[in-house]
Amino acid sequence: MALLKILGTELPIIQAPMAGAQDSKLAIAVSNAGALGSLPCAMLTTDGVHEQMTAVRAQTDKPVNVNAFCHVPPTPDGAREAAWRSALAPYFEEFGLDLDAIPQAPVRAPFSDEVAEVLAAFRPEIVSFHFGLPTPALLARVKAWGARVLSSATTVEEARWLEERGVDAIIAQGLEAGGHRGMFLTDDVTTQIGTFALLPQLVRAVKVPVIAAGGIADASGVAAAMALGAAGVQIGTAYLLCPETMISDAHRAALKSEAARYTALTNLFSGRPARGIVNRVMRELGPMSPVAPAFPLASAALAPLRASAESHGSGDFSPLWCGQMPDGCREVPSAMLTQDLAAGL
Amino acid sequence: MALLKILGTELPIIQAPMAGAQDSKLAIAVSNAGALGSLPCAMLTTDGVHEQMTAVRAQTDKPVNVNAFCHVPPTPDGAREAAWRSALAPYFEEFGLDLDAIPQAPVRAPFSDEVAEVLAAFRPEIVSFHFGLPTPALLARVKAWGARVLSSATTVEEARWLEERGVDAIIAQGLEAGGHRGMFLTDDVTTQIGTFALLPQLVRAVKVPVIAAGGIADASGVAAAMALGAAGVQIGTAYLLCPETMISDAHRAALKSEAARYTALTNLFSGRPARGIVNRVMRELGPMSPVAPAFPLASAALAPLRASAESHGSGDFSPLWCGQMPDGCREVPSAMLTQDLAAGL
Repeated sequence: MALLKILGTELPIIQAPMAGAQDSKLAIAVSNAGALGSLPCAMLTTDGVHEQMTAVRAQTDKPVNVNAFCHVPPTPDGAREAAWRSALAPYFEEFGLDLDAIPQAPVRAPFSDEVAEVLAAFRPEIVSFHFGLPTPALLARVKAWGARVLSSATTVEEARWLEERGVDAIIAQGLEAGGHRGMFLTDDVTTQIGTFALLPQLVRAVKVPVIAAGGIADASGVAAAMALGAAGVQIGTAYLLCPETMISDAHRAALKSEAARYTALTNLFSGRPARGIVNRVMRELGPMSPVAPAFPLASAALAPLRASAESHGSGDFSPLWCGQMPDGCREVPSAMLTQDLAAGL
Repeated sequence: MALLKILGTELPIIQAPMAGAQDSKLAIAVSNAGALGSLPCAMLTTDGVHEQMTAVRAQTDKPVNVNAFCHVPPTPDGAREAAWRSALAPYFEEFGLDLDAIPQAPVRAPFSDEVAEVLAAFRPEIVSFHFGLPTPALLARVKAWGARVLSSATTVEEARWLEERGVDAIIAQGLEAGGHRGMFLTDDVTTQIGTFALLPQLVRAVKVPVIAAGGIADASGVAAAMALGAAGVQIGTAYLLCPETMISDAHRAALKSEAARYTALTNLFSGRPARGIVNRVMRELGPMSPVAPAFPLASAALAPLRASAESHGSGDFSPLWCGQMPDGCREVPSAMLTQDLAAGL
């Protein structure tokens, strides 16, 4: 099977990289279970990447996937930032926080020469990208150490674009998926479609293997994705309650509650549309706000509100990333979850 | 197989009822092809129902499905109607139309004693409902002539509600589906999820057979739905280009164009969220407008704009219903399409 050759794994199952929700611990456990564990780097410093990859190499000899974002950092827009702060001002007042003392939050950084330099020493077998691909030079550098490259497509056009640029396999990210939409040739959310509709279109459109993502959370979902022509699956939300993640108590509680049945695409937490459980700030500002600064700048001003709310156990201002199939979340070791998912192959 | 017993058909495939887009012609052709043809009654007068059912009984001896809406007609709200007309006023001016001369348009009517009276004479084998179920008395009347009853669920709660009230099978309407969302226990669109996520949840939640709908448009989609636990499938959009439908030239052209890749839920055309191809009025007023009158009243004031635009071949003000899988639309006889879909069983 072509995809297994590319991934070098026993199972055509990828644990979706979930920046902020997991580190090497989950990746290691999943890779050791025969699937492909993923280490998200978008919110790590280069030192962090080094530390996490050191842990990976120490604790598994199986292939691992390193994931990076490759957005173009926006030019800060003073007027938009001001409008955003003004929208958030009532909350700062309510929480007794100072709007003029917003700290520099760590922002999601795109893949860079510096990160590639760190990674080159570890030669991760797989590198997956979100929001397109890095520059041709950076992509060539990744391939030069022997890595196979994956990226997400949300439309037929994106899949063709990625194939033309030499990716080894494409992740079809259906609209059910939690977290950030990988869309990069469009910012029009009306182009974003469900896994049932997207997957077979991509399978027809490209020759490289297509990996299904979005709404797949148990063995029957895996079986259905394979029936639709997927070469493999990428699964995120289902892993969120595993003991190897590091989500907040508020996120964990929300995932286990009825609230998880209500998700929406929102740009409030980062500036790009991402699927999360509807919470107070999404309800009150509208999940998609025209004043939220461009990705990834929206997160900075929200950070103090988030920290304050979370310190009281509240997820009212947190990104509660979640796909449309939270029923698949189980508080079991990720190795067990992986084996259960594999029953659908 | 339980569903085939219920439907009385050779194939567990239902042609989705599409009010305004088809009449008995499509239903007859599909039923004769071994699947279940559907006659939508929501926009028919009782005379129309009689005429169409007479045609059905004359042209096929196979089972047929009659579909009706069962919303509660709203109390007209003068302020909201005024706000709606005010939102539409610039278009009336542009088209040289008189906002004060809006004719009484035929509105979608809920299932009633009068319709039941007409249908009783024909004893349709299957009656499917959208937006819940009619009153217990009306439901009993339908069952009294031996009809099997189907209805759509968009959440686990709706599926359980329908099962408790005695439906014979439940249609799981995934978010990919074109046309009206069948949601009836909630008006919160954040509860609406993709077929991949919805279908297995409903299969687990109820004992009656579950029929998959939304994003299924070819044999591989049928196979995937069955793999997810569906007892059968309901397919709408794929039939829209068949010669037996009666869609407008503008709708046909849109379905065949790149525009069909851009769909959204919109309440502009009726007052309830329904999926259609993004067109001018959806772009300019926003696909979901808080000023659109309650279902089904929103359609009246739009009707003159729609008629005027369509007379020039434009779908700018028309409901261009379409699911997220327009690739499945083919200009072939519906019997041929049905046989091709059946290859996925």
